[in-house]
Amino acid sequence: MIGWRARIGVLLPPDNAVLEVEANRLPLPGVSFNIARMFPVELGELPQDAPRHIPSLKECRVNFIVYACAASSFMFGPGSNDELERKIRKLSGLDAVTATSSMVFSLKALGIRKVALATPYWKELDEKLLTYFAAGDIEVVRMKSLQLDNWEAMNNQTPDAVYRLVRRADHPEAEGILILSTNLPTFEVLQVLEDDLGKPVVSTNQGMMWTACRKLGIRDGIPGFGSLWQRSSWSGQ
Amino acid sequence: MIGWRARIGVLLPPDNAVLEVEANRLPLPGVSFNIARMFPVELGELPQDAPRHIPSLKECRVNFIVYACAASSFMFGPGSNDELERKIRKLSGLDAVTATSSMVFSLKALGIRKVALATPYWKELDEKLLTYFAAGDIEVVRMKSLQLDNWEAMNNQTPDAVYRLVRRADHPEAEGILILSTNLPTFEVLQVLEDDLGKPVVSTNQGMMWTACRKLGIRDGIPGFGSLWQRSSWSGQ
Amino acid sequence: MIGWRARIGVLLPPDNAVLEVEANRLPLPGVSFNIARMFPVELGELPQDAPRHIPSLKECRVNFIVYACAASSFMFGPGSNDELERKIRKLSGLDAVTATSSMVFSLKALGIRKVALATPYWKELDEKLLTYFAAGDIEVVRMKSLQLDNWEAMNNQTPDAVYRLVRRADHPEAEGILILSTNLPTFEVLQVLEDDLGKPVVSTNQGMMWTACRKLGIRDGIPGFGSLWQRSSWSGQ
Amino acid sequence: MIGWRARIGVLLPPDNAVLEVEANRLPLPGVSFNIARMFPVELGELPQDAPRHIPSLKECRVNFIVYACAASSFMFGPGSNDELERKIRKLSGLDAVTATSSMVFSLKALGIRKVALATPYWKELDEKLLTYFAAGDIEVVRMKSLQLDNWEAMNNQTPDAVYRLVRRADHPEAEGILILSTNLPTFEVLQVLEDDLGKPVVSTNQGMMWTACRKLGIRDGIPGFGSLWQRSSWSGQ
Amino acid sequence: MIGWRARIGVLLPPDNAVLEVEANRLPLPGVSFNIARMFPVELGELPQDAPRHIPSLKECRVNFIVYACAASSFMFGPGSNDELERKIRKLSGLDAVTATSSMVFSLKALGIRKVALATPYWKELDEKLLTYFAAGDIEVVRMKSLQLDNWEAMNNQTPDAVYRLVRRADHPEAEGILILSTNLPTFEVLQVLEDDLGKPVVSTNQGMMWTACRKLGIRDGIPGFGSLWQRSSWSGQ
Amino acid sequence: MIGWRARIGVLLPPDNAVLEVEANRLPLPGVSFNIARMFPVELGELPQDAPRHIPSLKECRVNFIVYACAASSFMFGPGSNDELERKIRKLSGLDAVTATSSMVFSLKALGIRKVALATPYWKELDEKLLTYFAAGDIEVVRMKSLQLDNWEAMNNQTPDAVYRLVRRADHPEAEGILILSTNLPTFEVLQVLEDDLGKPVVSTNQGMMWTACRKLGIRDGIPGFGSLWQRSSWSGQ
Amino acid sequence: MIGWRARIGVLLPPDNAVLEVEANRLPLPGVSFNIARMFPVELGELPQDAPRHIPSLKECRVNFIVYACAASSFMFGPGSNDELERKIRKLSGLDAVTATSSMVFSLKALGIRKVALATPYWKELDEKLLTYFAAGDIEVVRMKSLQLDNWEAMNNQTPDAVYRLVRRADHPEAEGILILSTNLPTFEVLQVLEDDLGKPVVSTNQGMMWTACRKLGIRDGIPGFGSLWQRSSWSGQ
Amino acid sequence: MIGWRARIGVLLPPDNAVLEVEANRLPLPGVSFNIARMFPVELGELPQDAPRHIPSLKECRVNFIVYACAASSFMFGPGSNDELERKIRKLSGLDAVTATSSMVFSLKALGIRKVALATPYWKELDEKLLTYFAAGDIEVVRMKSLQLDNWEAMNNQTPDAVYRLVRRADHPEAEGILILSTNLPTFEVLQVLEDDLGKPVVSTNQGMMWTACRKLGIRDGIPGFGSLWQRSSWSGQ
Repeated sequence: MIGWRARIGVLLPPDNAVLEVEANRLPLPGVSFNIARMFPVELGELPQDAPRHIPSLKECRVNFIVYACAASSFMFGPGSNDELERKIRKLSGLDAVTATSSMVFSLKALGIRKVALATPYWKELDEKLLTYFAAGDIEVVRMKSLQLDNWEAMNNQTPDAVYRLVRRADHPEAEGILILSTNLPTFEVLQVLEDDLGKPVVSTNQGMMWTACRKLGIRDGIPGFGSLWQRSSWSGQ
Repeated sequence: MIGWRARIGVLLPPDNAVLEVEANRLPLPGVSFNIARMFPVELGELPQDAPRHIPSLKECRVNFIVYACAASSFMFGPGSNDELERKIRKLSGLDAVTATSSMVFSLKALGIRKVALATPYWKELDEKLLTYFAAGDIEVVRMKSLQLDNWEAMNNQTPDAVYRLVRRADHPEAEGILILSTNLPTFEVLQVLEDDLGKPVVSTNQGMMWTACRKLGIRDGIPGFGSLWQRSSWSGQ
Repeated sequence: MIGWRARIGVLLPPDNAVLEVEANRLPLPGVSFNIARMFPVELGELPQDAPRHIPSLKECRVNFIVYACAASSFMFGPGSNDELERKIRKLSGLDAVTATSSMVFSLKALGIRKVALATPYWKELDEKLLTYFAAGDIEVVRMKSLQLDNWEAMNNQTPDAVYRLVRRADHPEAEGILILSTNLPTFEVLQVLEDDLGKPVVSTNQGMMWTACRKLGIRDGIPGFGSLWQRSSWSGQ
Repeated sequence: MIGWRARIGVLLPPDNAVLEVEANRLPLPGVSFNIARMFPVELGELPQDAPRHIPSLKECRVNFIVYACAASSFMFGPGSNDELERKIRKLSGLDAVTATSSMVFSLKALGIRKVALATPYWKELDEKLLTYFAAGDIEVVRMKSLQLDNWEAMNNQTPDAVYRLVRRADHPEAEGILILSTNLPTFEVLQVLEDDLGKPVVSTNQGMMWTACRKLGIRDGIPGFGSLWQRSSWSGQ
Repeated sequence: MIGWRARIGVLLPPDNAVLEVEANRLPLPGVSFNIARMFPVELGELPQDAPRHIPSLKECRVNFIVYACAASSFMFGPGSNDELERKIRKLSGLDAVTATSSMVFSLKALGIRKVALATPYWKELDEKLLTYFAAGDIEVVRMKSLQLDNWEAMNNQTPDAVYRLVRRADHPEAEGILILSTNLPTFEVLQVLEDDLGKPVVSTNQGMMWTACRKLGIRDGIPGFGSLWQRSSWSGQ
Repeated sequence: MIGWRARIGVLLPPDNAVLEVEANRLPLPGVSFNIARMFPVELGELPQDAPRHIPSLKECRVNFIVYACAASSFMFGPGSNDELERKIRKLSGLDAVTATSSMVFSLKALGIRKVALATPYWKELDEKLLTYFAAGDIEVVRMKSLQLDNWEAMNNQTPDAVYRLVRRADHPEAEGILILSTNLPTFEVLQVLEDDLGKPVVSTNQGMMWTACRKLGIRDGIPGFGSLWQRSSWSGQ
Repeated sequence: MIGWRARIGVLLPPDNAVLEVEANRLPLPGVSFNIARMFPVELGELPQDAPRHIPSLKECRVNFIVYACAASSFMFGPGSNDELERKIRKLSGLDAVTATSSMVFSLKALGIRKVALATPYWKELDEKLLTYFAAGDIEVVRMKSLQLDNWEAMNNQTPDAVYRLVRRADHPEAEGILILSTNLPTFEVLQVLEDDLGKPVVSTNQGMMWTACRKLGIRDGIPGFGSLWQRSSWSGQ
Repeated sequence: MIGWRARIGVLLPPDNAVLEVEANRLPLPGVSFNIARMFPVELGELPQDAPRHIPSLKECRVNFIVYACAASSFMFGPGSNDELERKIRKLSGLDAVTATSSMVFSLKALGIRKVALATPYWKELDEKLLTYFAAGDIEVVRMKSLQLDNWEAMNNQTPDAVYRLVRRADHPEAEGILILSTNLPTFEVLQVLEDDLGKPVVSTNQGMMWTACRKLGIRDGIPGFGSLWQRSSWSGQ
């Protein structure tokens, strides 16, 4: 039976052309990723669109749900993000995380208190992101952005553009780097970035998949996808 | 850029837990499969649900659309199937095929005139399937079914159950076998079935992915996924 | 010469369709497993049937004998199990272990004092198993069963069903898990279960093969078959 | 489920220490070999012992039975061999072959009319073997024997002793070589013998496994185990 | 000794960031590529700059020289190209080819009479290219260009951009495709393009390296770099 | 894009036939080596020739420059070497090292205070080399030379000649060995020399590539190229 | 048992440092090469020294003897060579070939009538070689020599020197090349030479090992050691 | 050049059919083993025969000599063994060891004070071996022998016979095992013996090759050939 360890449901923004390929690149025997593509509403309205796709995911018996949009889960602040997460859990009767929650969860699992951010976003979203972090206990020591202003461009980036962005974003005080957005392809450069920078690098897709797996009790160590996936110990939640 | 050769949009029935894993198992560099999960309506109403998910697929710039439900595309006969295909093409402005059309396309590409059918369905759907074929020029010489009456059971089958079903379905006059339904996992047994039976075996997922690729001008030969994927020549359409 | 390190004789219950395949999957150069299939008597009478197959095993010069039925060696309690083991040793003039003894031997080798049990059995056998453990110094903290009531069903299980059973059987206080029965295929999931649960998992076939090898002075470490086979030190007996 | 393509029951002479290792060396996914070890009666009485082990094999749901003793199936001539085969089929309700029948079947499948024989036997058995062939349409052009007079010695041979025996047994007129006895380890030298002699080499174990598979509709081509296993076409029976 | 089969001298335009990596990716034991980087003069003046770098190449004992700029060797027409080639031969005392000559040589080796062109150039260079071909016996049936207007952009292209350009450039009448410019990275997509288009694809770097090797009597067949490198026969010149 | 991590510009002496092959043998994804071959002037005049090739390297957007001649950077003493390095940095606006500086940098990174030297040079150059080291804080405890008197001979050496030279050059007090000259092929014997001598071995090409990478923040550990490349920690500049 | 297919005795000239390494590089399971090193007599007296080493080879039960000196077997002409071969056969009671006979045997097996010769010898030996061939039916169309005048130098050659010698020795009319002397290392360049020249290349060690194997009925095809070892058919002698 | 790290000369007893194959199985790049086969004199006279083969070894420029007969170097006691070693060193002008010296050297390198012996010899030789050890500071705690009385039998043993001999020879007080004789094939079972016994196992061929390499400053660690070859540190002599 396919998905015999777990089926992970994914609420995916409509433009996303990256997550499905990256998720299936992780060598996780018995784990499947099942996608529900949300409708092309305004970015800020995605949280409202999400609930109507939950019954579809339930139909294929998923065991967990990830809300795979970073921007729409951080743009209204921590309170709204928590609210969204609670709503998905309640409607689905399953455990769930948003992209934003899982990034914070991943950074904390790595013990990172000071972070540098690399984003594909335009100025407005970057500012909302900083606001989100300002409310928590992880300090942002630098942020660099590609300043792309449309989703198609974000979905067409190459990994080496991400490499150069992250090199620019790094800062001596940063204990780790966070690459924003489920639209950026990062899996091919995560390891080389960690080697070159000598510190952990977390990306939204990597952190979200890892959080889902760890919360499901799936604890494979996988080489080549950053130090997050190589951590062997986990004290659960 | 991910999906640099092509992005294939998939209109997926909500219960389906198999297609996403099988599609991503095909070693097709530069090809991505982008899923839109349809809503949990009645089986016969899926063709009506399909159109509202097309804009979502357009958002991530797919180059082709497959309608990945066999039963709801053959149950109303060839006319309705053609109509559905035309509607998707028109609404999307892209080339498209249904699961049913792609199965017929695959059988014809292999030169199969007499076929044996293996299905997971219950009696009523099996009869509709026979009716569909009766209207065309491919003769059905035998049909065997698992007689499963719910979609969850169909999605939880193991490949060796499929192997035994197909062995029972084979018939000396059959020039090839067709395994129905996008819910059955077949990729692990397609090759061994062909070796044991000495004739081509087509499954819905295999035939649908192959048809989409060939129509997009993607002509990789892939060993281990049945004779369909090993065919090197193609004269297009 | 085949079996140049050791030939391990196996007294196998007649229904067993699993052990021969699992035993031969272990990469143990120079070790052979030689089977004698017992007669289809009642479960409780297998210990009486065993002796008449010992001369057959002696004919091919085995160096050790395993009595490969768990249920019939634990169902009458520790005393009967010891008696059976002694009888096989006496009749064969060789060292020997029963499935039940080897499971206890394996758990102790791993230092497990509190165990969770996963079985394929029906209620009656499960109760006898608990009675057996109650008489010793290993505490059972949870037990979950498939509640199968015929041997054919037990021999036709897939590894992923075993995975889910063991996930259900785990308990926070358990220092390890024991999967009962030589009929369940466990070799494909032992390692992933240990990774996910973060504790050792022993299955009857695994523990029995390991016990036989260690008692014969065969001490290969084998990756991928659970922590038992990866242990490098052994202080013998 | 283990043995999902087929389970092949084996009635094995008690002394045999070779067949179980060789059978499991064949890379045949989904095929299992299930052993019943016969009792240590006189060689000539093995056919009488065989029936009482058939119910044991039926218990694990085998799909086919091989009678894995060459000598006791040829020593009484073709009529007795056919009778034995019929008896096993009748008692089991399954298709079956003896070691002797499968050797003849294999030689004919390879189109061999003139054969050289290599045996481990003593004079008396060699003569009975010649008598057996004299009654059929395959001509024996040479025979060489190890002249071993006990079964333990036969089961302890090394492959290179078999290599040298077969080199001595070859004859310019022989279209192929047949190596007798299920006790001789031949799998490691079959291919090199064929390369050196430039003609097919059949051994009892190889031919018996191949015959069972082909009659079950299992038609894998396997490199490295002689030309018999590399034949891709088969017209059945 | 490094370069024991041959040392190939390369006169490289100063901006080129691609050829050195691609040339060294070819698995050619005993062959080295030795670079002389020309001075940053105007494109049209590169042929005048080339001679002053020939003595440098002679110092490391190259056996052959390639003039690795396509545009400056075709922009003045066939006569000037031949003149440039003759001058390099005379000054160096070695055999030599220009990028342009080697492309024509490669197309003819593949028997291509009608070609489609894919270029990174701007309009003016594209027109000069068409003029060059108009003077010979290879017919251009289509041309598509990236219309890049600076060399840095050309040197920063990714292989998938080249893939899409070539797909656009193909034409049913074209017997093959020629990708222009030593600045475009093509080695990662040459094979997949040939598979998808069903016809040979030649790129400047591929054709130039191949021509140099063939003229030096180095005739390795290399899989994965297009049909040119897989050709086993060569009747020299 | 080729060279997406970094493009390293190389000012190469004209006779050099070794560096281009060795540099491209290092498995450094995303790093390219871009060559400018200097003019065939007298050895001592190479530092004067270097500047006129810097604009060529700038054209292909290199991120760093190495001056790849050992002799001409040490023959005039530390002051001139520093002056040369400063000049290249100033003219290029990029960070840069000479072969000589990078050797010293590498030895110090390995904590070597006493070194044995192996050179291909004739007496005069050897003496200048000793003079250079005499001015610094690394003590030379032995020096052995091939006493070759022409550059062609130096470029045609085989790795095993280097092995024997280094074995002769080793001295019990040496904490490491330095192999001089960018003309000697050393990559195939660096590791075996370290294993046999039990101490680090640095060669000019190895040390120069490593220094460039480390200064660019490229910190891959590469097995098989000496202990320098296996060092994981680096504390910058 | 080591050498279970065959043990090949080798009468080796004392200076030879090459044959033992090359012979053991051939992947020939069950074949061993057993060396007797002849005494350091004059080249012309080696045939007289050979007999006293035959009893040593007989002690380890060799099945065949090769006289592994080319020069001393051709320098006195075909009659003396035949006489030497007969003497070794008579004294040993085994089949035997000289280096010279096996080279002729190999050329004829490849159907070569016109040959080019590459030798390491000085003028006098080259002339004797030509005289030898003049007496037979293979025509020498060109000969090139390294003109080495001592055996130590011959034994210290590198494969790339052999490559360049053979490239010089080739001639358009030559149907194949013969590389003389058991002292030259040729196994690393045989295949690349055949690829570059487009014709078979035979070397003394290659041809001698092949002849011994074929005469012993050992017919492995081995890729990478020239077309001689890839020939699958052999009609014996 | 073959043997570029070292050429090791071997004075080999005439019957030996094992050492040449085992020595060449060691993956030691640049190291060659050059054999001189001694004459078939009485065992006790081999030390007298040895000197006349030293000039042959000198002809191929060996760097070291091993006297590869255990029995004839221990049978006359430590004094004679030392004398033989001195004589070979003096006559050759090279460093040298006998089989016996190298075994003692290897045991001491492993820190073994109490040893168990496994030999192929007959009683008389076994007693002389014990006498030899009695004179030194390594205590023999057990000895088991194959009691073979002719050299041909010794040279035809299989590795699994050696395995069983060593298992019998082991003793709880033994800190390691020594397998005698250069005629026994041990390389295939050394590692499995060490794993099963949990202590180092030295064989004559293994210890002799290792001693020669270590004395030549060749310090490769090689997995799979016993703990001796895996030792990384060496303090020389």
